[in-house]
Amino acid sequence: MGRLHRLTEQGFIDLVRSLAGGTRSSRGPRFRPVLGIGDDAAILPSSGRLQTLLTTDFLAEGVHFRTAWSPGFLLGRKALAVNLSDIAAMGGVPRACVMSAGFPARLRPGYARDVARGFADRARRHGVVLVGGDTGRARALFLNVALLGAVEPGRAVRRSGARAGDGLYVTGALGASAAGLRLLGRGVRAGQGRTRGAFAPALRAHLDPEPRVVAGRLLGLTGLAAAMIDLSDGLWHDLPRLCAASGTGAVVEEAAVPVSPAAHAVLGRTGARRAAIAGGEDYELLFAARSGLEAQVAHLARRIRLPMSRIGQIVPRRRGVRLLTRSGRYVPFADLAGGFRHFPADA
Amino acid sequence: MGRLHRLTEQGFIDLVRSLAGGTRSSRGPRFRPVLGIGDDAAILPSSGRLQTLLTTDFLAEGVHFRTAWSPGFLLGRKALAVNLSDIAAMGGVPRACVMSAGFPARLRPGYARDVARGFADRARRHGVVLVGGDTGRARALFLNVALLGAVEPGRAVRRSGARAGDGLYVTGALGASAAGLRLLGRGVRAGQGRTRGAFAPALRAHLDPEPRVVAGRLLGLTGLAAAMIDLSDGLWHDLPRLCAASGTGAVVEEAAVPVSPAAHAVLGRTGARRAAIAGGEDYELLFAARSGLEAQVAHLARRIRLPMSRIGQIVPRRRGVRLLTRSGRYVPFADLAGGFRHFPADA
Repeated sequence: MGRLHRLTEQGFIDLVRSLAGGTRSSRGPRFRPVLGIGDDAAILPSSGRLQTLLTTDFLAEGVHFRTAWSPGFLLGRKALAVNLSDIAAMGGVPRACVMSAGFPARLRPGYARDVARGFADRARRHGVVLVGGDTGRARALFLNVALLGAVEPGRAVRRSGARAGDGLYVTGALGASAAGLRLLGRGVRAGQGRTRGAFAPALRAHLDPEPRVVAGRLLGLTGLAAAMIDLSDGLWHDLPRLCAASGTGAVVEEAAVPVSPAAHAVLGRTGARRAAIAGGEDYELLFAARSGLEAQVAHLARRIRLPMSRIGQIVPRRRGVRLLTRSGRYVPFADLAGGFRHFPADA
Repeated sequence: MGRLHRLTEQGFIDLVRSLAGGTRSSRGPRFRPVLGIGDDAAILPSSGRLQTLLTTDFLAEGVHFRTAWSPGFLLGRKALAVNLSDIAAMGGVPRACVMSAGFPARLRPGYARDVARGFADRARRHGVVLVGGDTGRARALFLNVALLGAVEPGRAVRRSGARAGDGLYVTGALGASAAGLRLLGRGVRAGQGRTRGAFAPALRAHLDPEPRVVAGRLLGLTGLAAAMIDLSDGLWHDLPRLCAASGTGAVVEEAAVPVSPAAHAVLGRTGARRAAIAGGEDYELLFAARSGLEAQVAHLARRIRLPMSRIGQIVPRRRGVRLLTRSGRYVPFADLAGGFRHFPADA
């Protein structure tokens, strides 16, 4: 308790700083705050002509994760990753963040330290600087991040820019995170012997998702993405959000949705197909691009070695948001069985 | 559960927006985001030459508050107030914030709604715009705010600007919040009959602190404050922090510390004097001003009708941080009995 007390109450943020500080991102020099951790607030330089992006997301124990299922290092990485995914979905560059952490008294000190290490690792990889935070006791562990990004004026990619006729695309493949969650529920744990085989990618997708920061940035800068959202809650939830913001409908061709091989290995063919549409937490990007840009999207995908699949198209609002099944039926998204569910809160 | 579910999972942030939206601050037009709530991230306009301030603070149930003690409306106000206090202590203008809220299933729906109302009320009064947030289930209630402010380049007031010979000042009077906490521990509740008398100011100080945003801004803009910190953890904790950042020591004259009459009424003379030094959560500003500026500080205090008391001075580091007691003894701060303690976490 003594060591945890010192670590969490006074040293957690400093620990992250010491771990992340002094190194450089592989993507160029890090953003430099005027004043970082240690005062009442951080001071960030004038953004010049750039606009500022701001997002926040938290992970709460028993709802978004369980400490028995998530190694602390991966949890720290994920706490930042889910926020990076939001900046990616706007086409922005992530820059600086503040983190709040509430630690229950029963938490192992080593776990908190691993969270700090994982968070610092993620921050370093993306050139994001932790400029402040708040730590203290809480009844259950939670990690909250607020992340600032930058974007050229008018270049942010909103959810609202799609129009009928646009192609609808998704990065990567879907369903692996839901498969990983299923494995965890069955008692499979990250790092155990059997997870080195087919199960490892599914667990990784759930516990350590890779935010599509470079893809989002390029889709924004090139103007290819007319509208974009990250798939945090799954296609079933997030596509209707994009359509609502754009005032459109959409048709998704089930056969065109990229199903993760990891999901297939864990859930079987039917289960994987379902997870690709109704699962959540894949943190891939869903975007609309004007008709005629297919080749340019494909070119970008090859350049950054990240698949981008055309899964359907944007249609007028009156036609709703529908799935064209493999058997040729149109099923409204609202009639599909429920999407991703967080763990039931056992509070 | 159904109503709370809808309110907290989908509607809480929208509720705050609807309550705070459309009105104007008494201090001029509100800050206008390019894009507020509803996308993956908010878009804020270029800050031009201004620097950006960023701070974050959370309140966790059972540690910083108890729902039985804090009316939801006041808790919502306080969640923003403690962050406003940090921007005030930098001499900045608060502008935009994101809020995260984790709600336990057992929480009364009306309580969450009151929190939203209180938060919106505080935001409106200071012209702060809520531009995003994250809400979901959690085992225990927590409220996290990340607040952005703006400040002219080079004008932010850091903790590190004090030097030997500076006068040391505090706004308002101290000890009332600790007195309010004592009352709550005794079973006195806000809004009950007896609290309308002498106890009301103490309860208000603890449950509904007033951040010194105008004072902090003017102390910064005028250049009067060379170093500044807000008294969130009490003089006993926060003065050593300011001194450490500045590389100085300090002497506080016990007889010069302004003791809140509310603390006196609740805690008696000795208890109130102790609370003024060792109590926390008063959210007054502690600042250093160069010698010779006494009259200008007094003039500013009169202008904004907020007392600013000279409580001692900054001295060289080797002389430490000491209290000159009423009996003429010098006592190192480190030897004073413990400062403010949060509620023991009952997790």
